[in-house]
Amino acid sequence: MVVDNGRRRPTIEDVAAAAGVSRGTVSRVLNGGVNVSPTALAAVNKAIKQTGYVVNTHARSLVTQRSGSVAFILSEPQEKFFEDPNFQVLLRGCTQALAEHDMPLLLSIADSEQDRERVVRFISGGHIDGALLFSVHAGNPVVSRLASLGIPAVTCGLPIGHEFDLAYVAVNEAEGGRLATAHLARLGRRRIATVTGPLDTPGGRDRLKGYKDGLEEAGLALDQKLIAHGDYTRISGQLAMEKLLKQDPELDAVFVASDLMALGAMDALARAGRSIPGDVAVVGFDDSPSATSAIPALTTVRQPFKRICEEMVRLLLALLDGQEPAAVILPAELVIRETA
Amino acid sequence: MVVDNGRRRPTIEDVAAAAGVSRGTVSRVLNGGVNVSPTALAAVNKAIKQTGYVVNTHARSLVTQRSGSVAFILSEPQEKFFEDPNFQVLLRGCTQALAEHDMPLLLSIADSEQDRERVVRFISGGHIDGALLFSVHAGNPVVSRLASLGIPAVTCGLPIGHEFDLAYVAVNEAEGGRLATAHLARLGRRRIATVTGPLDTPGGRDRLKGYKDGLEEAGLALDQKLIAHGDYTRISGQLAMEKLLKQDPELDAVFVASDLMALGAMDALARAGRSIPGDVAVVGFDDSPSATSAIPALTTVRQPFKRICEEMVRLLLALLDGQEPAAVILPAELVIRETA
Repeated sequence: MVVDNGRRRPTIEDVAAAAGVSRGTVSRVLNGGVNVSPTALAAVNKAIKQTGYVVNTHARSLVTQRSGSVAFILSEPQEKFFEDPNFQVLLRGCTQALAEHDMPLLLSIADSEQDRERVVRFISGGHIDGALLFSVHAGNPVVSRLASLGIPAVTCGLPIGHEFDLAYVAVNEAEGGRLATAHLARLGRRRIATVTGPLDTPGGRDRLKGYKDGLEEAGLALDQKLIAHGDYTRISGQLAMEKLLKQDPELDAVFVASDLMALGAMDALARAGRSIPGDVAVVGFDDSPSATSAIPALTTVRQPFKRICEEMVRLLLALLDGQEPAAVILPAELVIRETA
Repeated sequence: MVVDNGRRRPTIEDVAAAAGVSRGTVSRVLNGGVNVSPTALAAVNKAIKQTGYVVNTHARSLVTQRSGSVAFILSEPQEKFFEDPNFQVLLRGCTQALAEHDMPLLLSIADSEQDRERVVRFISGGHIDGALLFSVHAGNPVVSRLASLGIPAVTCGLPIGHEFDLAYVAVNEAEGGRLATAHLARLGRRRIATVTGPLDTPGGRDRLKGYKDGLEEAGLALDQKLIAHGDYTRISGQLAMEKLLKQDPELDAVFVASDLMALGAMDALARAGRSIPGDVAVVGFDDSPSATSAIPALTTVRQPFKRICEEMVRLLLALLDGQEPAAVILPAELVIRETA
């Protein structure tokens, strides 16, 4: 390795040489590992550690006047942050993934327009190197502001309207919805309802698309009476389920687009005297602590949160390193427990 | 008012003149309002708004290269942050109090030494103007590091070891413990136990002191068998109560140094077949959402959280304005519900 006044830091080329792979492979790994074989991925990760490549990304930040820090920006009311255990899991995962790079995470709960304006102003002052964005609805101004300021950002879930210019990590939402619905159809259920998330979020829009795909595969007709909408809170799941039971008392299954809403839906089913899964089978989405704490335990579509966090941090560091924004789509997986 | 190239910003003197009070009175208000009459307080607050004094504290930050932001630093594991509703209340209160000054709040959960090192490094880089510190145990290095770096900080609760060089806002802990214990004695209870917080926290140490004062006033003997310790988590309250019941099965009351631990103590009492308050009367501390959600509803010592947050932000802005660190002690108040 060439030493340049003791300041020479490992480059992508050094990592490629140490791993015995091409520069392009290292770049793909830094961009999220899409189209990289498991063997190459392991070799590159090992080489990154060996060469100290990532550590130097931070060391360099001291030279380039980077702050060496990352913000976790949640565009939701504070209540949701505390109510929905997904955020706890994501916060822990991102904190840990950043800690491995010795970078602190600062959390900002930016619900109102003023909150968002303040945090963008703070970040644009050079106090934060990059942002991890959560609960991004279409049209969220933080996304476009950061993009126009050229501040590296990675969203959790596809950023509607910025699919091609922002980095993001997402589970395959549509495939998750399809898996859930196909499972219910396989159990012999014929009137399968769904409670969606907000349709201006990728989880709202694309899990519904998966539900429709699943119905079609099973030869079941789409019926608007069997579709209701929530906002990912428990109470919204309960209200949506009450509405569905009113619109179609004969429904025998429901795919709910989040575990927390599924808990609310189960509250409504219990109050209506329906047994789970006897009368109505329930499948959630997330595999969050809500799913395992539910009684009966919730069958759900697993989001690999730890991996999502690791990939988000990896993509953000790649952006800081001058790489182009990439998307990482992770597979959805059905976890069968007691409710379906 | 003298205009100095249009850059002259209102001074404390301007506020004093507008309020018709002395400079010292304004200073005391900025330092938390101790020894200020309600009339003077109202006049100064009005004058602050009229003169734009506080707004300019922020405007000046742009000139002085301040970041215009404040960190909420919690020295606890992430689990506690989500488990204990006190933190939700404090986070909301501080966010709102800072929003009135158009300043963003960045949250840092710094449990490990490494976490603390990272956040101190970040702050010392000039990215944060000042810090609000929560759950500070004696010897917490963040406190001494920030103090030695000259970074304005205000702690929630007395900072043990830094009583005289750090600004803080606290409820009168000892008086709260005394009120709770005196109430139980007044109800005719004679074997009054206590579950304390960690003794390296002001709430652990001083609420216990108040308990002892209350026993003495009531002419009851201090008995080590009636004292057990928790760490403010619900499970620790349950375990401490189980220990107390073993050590003294005849106990007829318990003062628990936090509402969340009181919920745990109530779990233990219910399992041991003791009625509340019939067999054992319970008083908590905080008046947090835990207290009102408890069944039966918890009698507790109220901490005025909203006021605590407002005073913390006020003290921090005063420090940023060059004032000396001050302490604000707020009165404790007994809230009688169903458990005692």
